[in-house]
Amino acid sequence: MTTPILLTPGPLTTSLQTKQAMLTDWGSWDTAFNQLTASVCTDIVQIAKGDATHVCIPLQGSGTFAVEAALGTLVPPHGKVLVPNNGAYCQRMARILRYLGRAVVLLDHRDDEPADPARIDAALAADLTITHVAQVHCETGTGILNPLQDIAAVVQRHRCGLIVDAMSSFGALSIDLTTTPIDALIAASGKCLEGVPGMGFIVVRQDLIESSPGYSHSLALDLHDQWTYLQKTGQWRFTPPTHVVAALRTAMDQFLLEGGTPARGNRYRANCQALTQGMRDLGFRTLLPDEHQSPIIVTFHAPRSPGYRFESLYRSVRDKGFILYPGKLTQIETFRVGCIGAIGPEVMRQAVAALAQSLQELGVEP
Amino acid sequence: MTTPILLTPGPLTTSLQTKQAMLTDWGSWDTAFNQLTASVCTDIVQIAKGDATHVCIPLQGSGTFAVEAALGTLVPPHGKVLVPNNGAYCQRMARILRYLGRAVVLLDHRDDEPADPARIDAALAADLTITHVAQVHCETGTGILNPLQDIAAVVQRHRCGLIVDAMSSFGALSIDLTTTPIDALIAASGKCLEGVPGMGFIVVRQDLIESSPGYSHSLALDLHDQWTYLQKTGQWRFTPPTHVVAALRTAMDQFLLEGGTPARGNRYRANCQALTQGMRDLGFRTLLPDEHQSPIIVTFHAPRSPGYRFESLYRSVRDKGFILYPGKLTQIETFRVGCIGAIGPEVMRQAVAALAQSLQELGVEP
Repeated sequence: MTTPILLTPGPLTTSLQTKQAMLTDWGSWDTAFNQLTASVCTDIVQIAKGDATHVCIPLQGSGTFAVEAALGTLVPPHGKVLVPNNGAYCQRMARILRYLGRAVVLLDHRDDEPADPARIDAALAADLTITHVAQVHCETGTGILNPLQDIAAVVQRHRCGLIVDAMSSFGALSIDLTTTPIDALIAASGKCLEGVPGMGFIVVRQDLIESSPGYSHSLALDLHDQWTYLQKTGQWRFTPPTHVVAALRTAMDQFLLEGGTPARGNRYRANCQALTQGMRDLGFRTLLPDEHQSPIIVTFHAPRSPGYRFESLYRSVRDKGFILYPGKLTQIETFRVGCIGAIGPEVMRQAVAALAQSLQELGVEP
Repeated sequence: MTTPILLTPGPLTTSLQTKQAMLTDWGSWDTAFNQLTASVCTDIVQIAKGDATHVCIPLQGSGTFAVEAALGTLVPPHGKVLVPNNGAYCQRMARILRYLGRAVVLLDHRDDEPADPARIDAALAADLTITHVAQVHCETGTGILNPLQDIAAVVQRHRCGLIVDAMSSFGALSIDLTTTPIDALIAASGKCLEGVPGMGFIVVRQDLIESSPGYSHSLALDLHDQWTYLQKTGQWRFTPPTHVVAALRTAMDQFLLEGGTPARGNRYRANCQALTQGMRDLGFRTLLPDEHQSPIIVTFHAPRSPGYRFESLYRSVRDKGFILYPGKLTQIETFRVGCIGAIGPEVMRQAVAALAQSLQELGVEP
């Protein structure tokens, strides 16, 4: 059987070239590897147009490790964080803050409602003790896109810090740090840059990380220490995931060759359109209206047939070469299909065809 | 140029077969990947003969992440930890504990002196408020081997917990949990199991992790939460380093085929002997007497020639295909050569020959 296509929002399907970059062992103390790290970090900062103001700090682990590292390093012990909440990854940020003993204010939205800049404005006006806003850009739990630029403008007006989980948007949806005031932008290797999972990174204001007096609750997740050491030695503090970094470098070469964020975003939009059109033709309904839908991952209402079980559909579609993703909502039964990875719209159409065949085999109506 | 051989204690040189296992993308939610995780964990516990008592919890990140996770999850906030200290990785454990706000007592030894069970006994007798001992098995800073079995017996007599950093010994030096009472044993993918770096693991007493009421300071590093979720779902809580896990599975297949810990230890001992003999023939002196030397990594006194600089030697030997490792002592100038990885004694002899040639070219006397 050939390897199935991953329609999941990281890990995702990577190109063969990216995987082949892992066929070399690298010395973590070696100049060649230091150059690899430096070049990856330089290009990451440039993708967000942060060259003049921000630096990139790489971190071992998954994206959540990087989110926790940013919150722990940048929010002072007596800080208070507003988390506009419309999904699972917003709630994860709040959960991290509770672990860290930082005060959290949740600003709840519906799952299908983008974070509202006016409500954020009102919340910050009503509580002057709030120091930071922690915002998810594209909430992968549903695929909803939050209006980052408007939110950043509101947060700046209130002179609060802004920490953004851009895990599933970085590299696919434009973020311009010259016009969007953001303290720290967090993403990971195995998402829209199409590397393999194992490394997170934080694009953070240089003045902020250099003035941060070591708030971190954790040695491993201390970004200030990681940055200081990296600047002094060119090396990671602790053993880096060398093969993952090499794969990311190769993946980013392909990203730049493709045309950077605009081109990648266009391909994902074409993927998303092919998927959504095909699924609607089958009779499926998306959770979100098109105007709030990101081109990263789409949530569909589960079939209403009484015989439907996600596991059966998953297994049947998997046998045809495609891996779906479960829903992440507690109230409504849904499933998700990712549009990202080294794939084009023709693959999405094949996936829809496979899904149609599976429904027929299982005797399930969309 | 061919890829240089890494004479470094992780990342190390892995087999081509191990690297080729990374040429597949895995879905992190997929049964096939869950089985991969489960089989890796089962085999890791068996390597330490912990099947009846212990479980294996995998964790994203480097070995240090796993050490911090173990200390943060298992030592209660009002615990007090004795750290027998004879090197950099002992000091790192103490540094982590200070980050966590746990009380630490350092029991200092010389760099070339193994941790002394009698002194540990006396320290535990003198301070009854000590709850745990955090012990490094093979201190990679010098390559010294600490007498783990004797230390474990002492710690048990005092009814304290024992947390062991077995990073550079696991899989090469026998650890038998049926006869050696240890609460948690920590190692990583990219060490003596000869995988690639990016994943740590903790072999921990099942009753302990299940009774641990969530001491963790960190969501990402919370082993209790990681274990609970893994048991319930078969999955990692957050995106796993899928390719690293696949490489580790393949590396462990080779490990078992080679003959497990005894065979791997024998090969490393042969490597160490070939290296040490060759280097002594050149006129080099080891930091440690043979009876305290582990077969993992050897520290050599730096050449005494006034013209010697490690960087020059490093570069020259690298050009000949071998990557050395710098020393990690502050008082004495040294360098280190690792004996681990998918290499045999003939490679060590070639490395010594390359080093001899480099010395001649640089006009440096050992």
